[in-house]
Amino acid sequence: MIPSTLLAIDAGGTKTDLLWAQPDGRVLAHVQGQGINIASKPPGAWQEALEALFRQAGVDRETVHVVCAGAAGYTLPDRRALFEHLLQQMLPGARVLVLADYAIALEGATGGNPGVLVIAGTGSIACGRDREGKLMRVGGWGYLLGDEGSGFWIGREAIRAVLAATEGWGEQTRLYEMLSETLGSADCGEWLSALYRTQNPQSLLAQLAPHVTEAAEQGDTPAQRILLHAADHLAGLVTRLTQHLHLPEDFPVCTVGGVWQSQAVLRRFHQQLGERLLHWQGEVKPPMYSPVEGALLIAQRMMWA
Amino acid sequence: MIPSTLLAIDAGGTKTDLLWAQPDGRVLAHVQGQGINIASKPPGAWQEALEALFRQAGVDRETVHVVCAGAAGYTLPDRRALFEHLLQQMLPGARVLVLADYAIALEGATGGNPGVLVIAGTGSIACGRDREGKLMRVGGWGYLLGDEGSGFWIGREAIRAVLAATEGWGEQTRLYEMLSETLGSADCGEWLSALYRTQNPQSLLAQLAPHVTEAAEQGDTPAQRILLHAADHLAGLVTRLTQHLHLPEDFPVCTVGGVWQSQAVLRRFHQQLGERLLHWQGEVKPPMYSPVEGALLIAQRMMWA
Repeated sequence: MIPSTLLAIDAGGTKTDLLWAQPDGRVLAHVQGQGINIASKPPGAWQEALEALFRQAGVDRETVHVVCAGAAGYTLPDRRALFEHLLQQMLPGARVLVLADYAIALEGATGGNPGVLVIAGTGSIACGRDREGKLMRVGGWGYLLGDEGSGFWIGREAIRAVLAATEGWGEQTRLYEMLSETLGSADCGEWLSALYRTQNPQSLLAQLAPHVTEAAEQGDTPAQRILLHAADHLAGLVTRLTQHLHLPEDFPVCTVGGVWQSQAVLRRFHQQLGERLLHWQGEVKPPMYSPVEGALLIAQRMMWA
Repeated sequence: MIPSTLLAIDAGGTKTDLLWAQPDGRVLAHVQGQGINIASKPPGAWQEALEALFRQAGVDRETVHVVCAGAAGYTLPDRRALFEHLLQQMLPGARVLVLADYAIALEGATGGNPGVLVIAGTGSIACGRDREGKLMRVGGWGYLLGDEGSGFWIGREAIRAVLAATEGWGEQTRLYEMLSETLGSADCGEWLSALYRTQNPQSLLAQLAPHVTEAAEQGDTPAQRILLHAADHLAGLVTRLTQHLHLPEDFPVCTVGGVWQSQAVLRRFHQQLGERLLHWQGEVKPPMYSPVEGALLIAQRMMWA
């Protein structure tokens, strides 16, 4: 008799995680390979990356009954359908489910329980699931439309603070010296030039965010203000979710991403949640499991559904 | 005796204007050619474009004593120096001055008098010159850093308003239907996809701005709010300038760019200026002369200086 197995995939922008497991969750193999960004890379590259991961993990494709994959770039309907189609072709005998990357991350973060996940890395997004299983996300609109409170946004506000000071109407800030050093120039015109010439302005700006934390710790008022605003925006995402989800009073708020390394952001975020969510008695804490483990939890539920 | 002549150049992003004139301002030729974007095009292309304009205007290079050029992309110091060097090589006997595009636009707008120019097209910027000849600019940081109140910004806020409604926490808005029609899809995920794939997201977003005006005129509250905020941002640029320039009480505020076609923006802008500038008795009005004519005014002053 051929045994049944499960596949869980976290197809991220920079790396892809794959778990091959038994229906009870026992892991047969956990491998990691290059990113499958369904938004930007061609489908041929997705297939190559998956074939490599299947080989590396020694996946016996005939045994796979369920695949659950989370994909970055999920908001693009065409791309999402192509990715699902590709997985189905590679695993003809399996039930295939493709979800957004944040959906599997949420599942892992709360271990499948009701709760909220706030991701603040280069971008920002929050999602939550309530007791009825209703899933909702807010934010995650990308750097052209906001991504308030993200690393990109913090870096952008840092440059804006320096430009305001340069134009003579903003407060003086030590961010000017810090950013000059990082960007290799003391000329703001050259900063703009570098920013508008780079392929990934959001990454360039996100790299500046740690300097804002540093400046804030040194007592720089504009830097402190930026971090408080970032935390307020992130707390705002949670507030919006709670207005539309039926969450228990002690629901966890899980945090993921580099922005949370700032104690100032974390402190203000906590304080803001306390003020905005009247009866909330939960905790702010790190995720329980990883996103790919979240995908595995979902695959397990599909197995028995 | 070889007569003296002047050259005035407005090297814009999409077109270049050239005026060849006598020292008294009498125009010998006015020609227009392709854009010389010193920020993005290679110097070889600048030279070709200039040679073509010189030929078209029949410029006798030996007679040119003064050249004044305004250049888009002026904030890039390397590029600016290259452009000045190229002009000097092409006209070895002339005094060459390269200024920012907004500087010649301001000169033309006010006819060289003290005053303020507020440009709100795809981007937004304001500049002013006071009685002592002090020049100042605020804004113009580009779409990655703000450009509040610009066409890009209005279009971006329109998409944000629709996304907020879609996520269930923003007010319903007829912008959804309007943008669906323009963007050829009713799926917001596809809007984001198109936006993040295009080469010029700022142009794509600026194209949406007229729909905001239309929706506002039809009574749509979110659209009206966006236009009021845009006007407030633009009035804020003027306020900042007045804090640092010594302007007469009746200084003119000249407006240029597509955003001003919205009566709602213009009305609110006017009202805001009245509230914020206590003793101001000036007018909001269109420019007196074009940017290339502004460059000619400067060239004339250089001739006699």
